[in-house]
Amino acid sequence: MSHTVVQKYGGSSLADVAKIRRVAERVKASREGGHRLVVVVSAMGDTTDELLGLAKQISADPPRRELDMLLTCGERISMALLSMALQGLGVPAISFTGSQSGIITDDTHAQARIIEVRPERIEQALAEGRVVIVAGYQGVSRGREVTTLGRGGSDTTAVALAAALGADCEIYSDVDGVFSADPRLVPSARKLEAVSFDEMQELAAAGARVLNAQAVELARQRGIVIHARSTHTAGTGTVISASAPRARVRGITCDENLWVLSSSRPPALLFAALKALELRARTVLASAREKTMVVLPLEDVHSPEALRKALPSEVEVLDDLATVTCVGTGLGSDWDLGLQAHELASRLGGGVVASHGSTLQLTLVVQRQMAKALTLALHEALIDGAMQ
Amino acid sequence: MSHTVVQKYGGSSLADVAKIRRVAERVKASREGGHRLVVVVSAMGDTTDELLGLAKQISADPPRRELDMLLTCGERISMALLSMALQGLGVPAISFTGSQSGIITDDTHAQARIIEVRPERIEQALAEGRVVIVAGYQGVSRGREVTTLGRGGSDTTAVALAAALGADCEIYSDVDGVFSADPRLVPSARKLEAVSFDEMQELAAAGARVLNAQAVELARQRGIVIHARSTHTAGTGTVISASAPRARVRGITCDENLWVLSSSRPPALLFAALKALELRARTVLASAREKTMVVLPLEDVHSPEALRKALPSEVEVLDDLATVTCVGTGLGSDWDLGLQAHELASRLGGGVVASHGSTLQLTLVVQRQMAKALTLALHEALIDGAMQ
Repeated sequence: MSHTVVQKYGGSSLADVAKIRRVAERVKASREGGHRLVVVVSAMGDTTDELLGLAKQISADPPRRELDMLLTCGERISMALLSMALQGLGVPAISFTGSQSGIITDDTHAQARIIEVRPERIEQALAEGRVVIVAGYQGVSRGREVTTLGRGGSDTTAVALAAALGADCEIYSDVDGVFSADPRLVPSARKLEAVSFDEMQELAAAGARVLNAQAVELARQRGIVIHARSTHTAGTGTVISASAPRARVRGITCDENLWVLSSSRPPALLFAALKALELRARTVLASAREKTMVVLPLEDVHSPEALRKALPSEVEVLDDLATVTCVGTGLGSDWDLGLQAHELASRLGGGVVASHGSTLQLTLVVQRQMAKALTLALHEALIDGAMQ
Repeated sequence: MSHTVVQKYGGSSLADVAKIRRVAERVKASREGGHRLVVVVSAMGDTTDELLGLAKQISADPPRRELDMLLTCGERISMALLSMALQGLGVPAISFTGSQSGIITDDTHAQARIIEVRPERIEQALAEGRVVIVAGYQGVSRGREVTTLGRGGSDTTAVALAAALGADCEIYSDVDGVFSADPRLVPSARKLEAVSFDEMQELAAAGARVLNAQAVELARQRGIVIHARSTHTAGTGTVISASAPRARVRGITCDENLWVLSSSRPPALLFAALKALELRARTVLASAREKTMVVLPLEDVHSPEALRKALPSEVEVLDDLATVTCVGTGLGSDWDLGLQAHELASRLGGGVVASHGSTLQLTLVVQRQMAKALTLALHEALIDGAMQ
């Protein structure tokens, strides 16, 4: 029996009909290489944001269940079109929704977790010689409710299917793998040949868009090696695995799409309030001012203004901050590096609002307007400098 | 227990966010009138055509299964947005896909027939006091494949649900019921207060857009009275039922979206070829030239050019014809009327390519360019004239 490969294509690789055709050609070539193929797709280009925009016109805080109903259409459109394109090339193909693919999740709308994969229909279609196209980002609960996995959830779909099928996992995007920083921001950013799961998780959680943090966590748990590659070129990409060698500084990433919640409340009370709102924080920080600070990614917060109103009045929303994170081994106790980072931030005029280090990362919370410049400066000092 | 009403809103009533809001207000008012409500929705405005356009860019003849996957997104978008709008007005609402609504169909993609309705989830949600929003036009086969019911299929969804729930059935569109002709074409067209099922079927089959022919057939079989009403006004609409009084000429309708297939082949061979292509004809006519002529509505033919190539070469495609149909009692043997119709057609310069009468209708096949004028002339002679 030939080898099974799960490939995932992101929204920008499927942004229009011409791009969908190109992905179909690529899938066809992979199939001719002798693989059994499952292809997970995201929504075309900006479809998700367009659907979200419609919902926002209807309601400042759309109910999450209905939002999931709405947003899952994006991947369904992609999968049907890609399947048509493949069939047009003479490749037998069939598309399956999350539900038809057997992606069973809990019932947390907008941020569901996969609890089981029952890939019987996929296996049958593969046995019939077909390429299987799967709608990413979505599943179905045991109560037969349509759910979504949160932004970037198509990566999680791909990893979960690879685990269930004993398959390889290839994640395709517009860049050839994982870089030491976002190449659009840092022109000297280097492509990384290999990254360990935990470094990748830190990079993803701190704003690197190339892979979803939950997907990496799932790959780590299930021992699935991820190959991050470019849709457009034949580069070697990046291998994400347990065995990648460590580096002092692997990469620098910044995240501007977040709020910092600040409160003088006892942490237990604050946490209870955040739990009641079903919010998932990225980090909890104790600042110099002895307030509790919570870094809240806004990616899955569909209605920030509704959230602002729902927060207890004692919680201050700091909406002009960003994080810049260095990922690498031992950074949390690398005092030289910590000092250097703080100095660079001061030199850029903003200073550091708070910082937090742990085994694999050092995060600086800074004014949003200086985040990009600090990322560039840190890359220059810690990565470009280290190459010389 | 309060009375249950199934309301169906068409695509033009849901064309944008403002219109969806207006429908939500209307639904809210109905609910406050004390009804338990199930609301069946079509896709917003031109969404179906836009999705079809994407598919056509990918493939001249997109596979029907994938087309169904694609097109069902249209109603899912509408239902989620309408549910959000209702919840925004404080009305508890929940949306269900065709599958979640228990609409079980056969597995004929693009033209599936409903074989069973299992409305358990709808009943439970109604019992919880919610308004249930259902995606029209779609169902699921026993093999768990997503299917569609053909253009206008949302009407069928509404009637099938009304039958399964023992509910009233209200079909809302931009016009206040059924008219003696399309008011955009015939300004003197009169609204009909009551129409019998069989007259309505003839009108719908012959091109009247206000109700779907299959839906009317299902209503007849199940004894469901249909109320056709306007989304925008509080008019009395039209009641479609078994008991409506008959009229000599109930209405005139024309259909320009069709092909006439003409063949000298023995009918059995022609029919076998059409069956193999899964085509459903509206009428089969024997013309003066002793050829078999088949009137083929193009509404559900997603790729006319692909069909043209797939037809046996002996079959001639007449793609410049249209039908004009008079619906009323005894028309097929009303020789005075037949004569009058042929004379009017001759006077308009085109003549009649073929004609066909049966108990309830007389259909003239004419050059497409004269169809509208003939409809006007027939309405003037047979309906406006009869009023004087």
